[in-house]
Amino acid sequence: MAVNGASVKTSTELAEFDEIFTDLVEDLTRTGLKSSETKDAFEWFKEVVLTYNVPYGKKNRGISVVSSFRHLGADQSDEDLKIARVMGWCVELLQGFFLVSDDIMDHSVSRRGQPCWYKRENVGLIAINDSYFLECAIYQLLKKYASKKPYYVQLMELFLETTFQTVVGQCLDMTTAPPESVTTDFSKFSMERYSAIVKWKTAYYSFYLPVAIALYMAGIADEDTHAKAKLILLEMGHFFQVQDDYLDCYSSSEILGKIGTDIQDNKCGWLIVKALEVASEQQRKDLEANYGKWNDECIEKVKSVYKELGIEGIYQQFEEESYAKITGLIDSLDLGVPKSIFHDFVNKIYKRQK
Amino acid sequence: MAVNGASVKTSTELAEFDEIFTDLVEDLTRTGLKSSETKDAFEWFKEVVLTYNVPYGKKNRGISVVSSFRHLGADQSDEDLKIARVMGWCVELLQGFFLVSDDIMDHSVSRRGQPCWYKRENVGLIAINDSYFLECAIYQLLKKYASKKPYYVQLMELFLETTFQTVVGQCLDMTTAPPESVTTDFSKFSMERYSAIVKWKTAYYSFYLPVAIALYMAGIADEDTHAKAKLILLEMGHFFQVQDDYLDCYSSSEILGKIGTDIQDNKCGWLIVKALEVASEQQRKDLEANYGKWNDECIEKVKSVYKELGIEGIYQQFEEESYAKITGLIDSLDLGVPKSIFHDFVNKIYKRQK
Repeated sequence: MAVNGASVKTSTELAEFDEIFTDLVEDLTRTGLKSSETKDAFEWFKEVVLTYNVPYGKKNRGISVVSSFRHLGADQSDEDLKIARVMGWCVELLQGFFLVSDDIMDHSVSRRGQPCWYKRENVGLIAINDSYFLECAIYQLLKKYASKKPYYVQLMELFLETTFQTVVGQCLDMTTAPPESVTTDFSKFSMERYSAIVKWKTAYYSFYLPVAIALYMAGIADEDTHAKAKLILLEMGHFFQVQDDYLDCYSSSEILGKIGTDIQDNKCGWLIVKALEVASEQQRKDLEANYGKWNDECIEKVKSVYKELGIEGIYQQFEEESYAKITGLIDSLDLGVPKSIFHDFVNKIYKRQK
Repeated sequence: MAVNGASVKTSTELAEFDEIFTDLVEDLTRTGLKSSETKDAFEWFKEVVLTYNVPYGKKNRGISVVSSFRHLGADQSDEDLKIARVMGWCVELLQGFFLVSDDIMDHSVSRRGQPCWYKRENVGLIAINDSYFLECAIYQLLKKYASKKPYYVQLMELFLETTFQTVVGQCLDMTTAPPESVTTDFSKFSMERYSAIVKWKTAYYSFYLPVAIALYMAGIADEDTHAKAKLILLEMGHFFQVQDDYLDCYSSSEILGKIGTDIQDNKCGWLIVKALEVASEQQRKDLEANYGKWNDECIEKVKSVYKELGIEGIYQQFEEESYAKITGLIDSLDLGVPKSIFHDFVNKIYKRQK
């Protein structure tokens, strides 16, 4: 019953969230489409935003803004909730911005079951400029919907700071395992480096950002609350990314919606870092000879070393421990905001299959 | 005497401007370099910012912030002037951000006499992320130096809006003449389209932005003054870009510091648009057959059609008329701010050789 109730609530939330998207596209393109000077550009952008790149993801990050905000008060007006949804879409725009450009830098082929945006005919490297458009769209919406609110500057600074953090993470990732390098080099692969990449490239924008927006919107801006929320949420982000790395290798592409390519992409992922920690000298050599190669035999060889090392079991143990650590953290900290925000969040991702 | 005085003043201004750059690099990297998590990323960024991409341009845009600000008051404190210089560097960072990414999108080879950033060994498409870093740096500096100032939000919004305008311009440019297209298509080349590209892609950020920053810093935020300043400065930006297009074809590479490639790049530039306006049917066919091709004979053929059409003379006439129009505009408008801001600006670019 509780599960059904939660699920109905979630699907209504998603429907209400999706409902405003068309209006936001209108907000972003109305004036530009009316002017003969800029019409062609905004027709292009409308397609970038609409058909591709923004509305077809899982939208967990965007929805998190709304659900976190709901936890923070009972007397929220329809206007407040609308703004929370708009801010949720701003998080989705930020995600779209990162994905469009990450795909180019990683030479990716498909995303969410269709070709990457830059891979489409007539797009190519114009996609770089399109990624900037998605970023600019955030601040256009923020200004339109929140410029009269006391938290306007806090949200602007938060989005800008989060973008900066993600750019730092992307740099760490790309300099650890350059996508264009010819030989596999494990010298920079370590659990410390892995944790740093995850924190900066993923956890800030995917976990802290949505909750921080909700906190500022609810008038909660004190450093102590934000620091504690950040502690929990970055830990959750780490857990989430380790899962992601596990699923990339061990989930079926039908469930996942994409084919995992971390092994051939030479990614500094949790599985390889863990494997290198426990591998014998010979196993390390085997991994070195076969990781980062677009060749089925090499991929199978890496997977067979993972099997010898019992990586799946090590992962399952990590998952249990990490879940216990996070829930323990939530229970033990004096948070000043409803703990349900964090418990709901962790329960959404724990044991997910995609 | 007046000319010498102005020149001495300009070179001191430039020295004072250059002097603070090292401090700003420190501001942007100090914390990141101290942390073992992010050290590698910030070492990379320090090189991106320092060795390449920011400090070696002409710096006209950055200096314009300082000189415009000086025109606006006699009682400016050292702190105010320092902030004006920092904001000038923010304009240069914005310019660096656009140049790094434009070079990738245009497949350019060299910039400011050295290889483009993305063309360097070990860089490649990481340069996309580096362009984001340059953008993020603007808001880091803005927050550090101006967050307590009454004009903080105005400047944040101004930089964000200007970025958006430039992204619109880049989109217009790339969809008018796609750098990856195989055949030359003049169907979208027109003076209207050319003017729109110039206004959105160049004039807002190169001309209106520096003066608008100075106005906001001096407490001048009324719509009327900004609208009139914009009118003059966008006209000036148009004039500047037409010059740029002319110099690309007719200036020597020694003076210009780069080899002009607008013809082979299939650019929707002023010369080709003007040529198409006055060409006979046969000349149009010749241009169509030879424009946008990396082939010396084709380039020479295009230049010989320009010669037949007397494009250089048409340009010189345009230059005179445009200068008269802009100075007329400055003299006739009731501006409420010293007209010397605008006269100085136009005199800096009129009859320039690079």
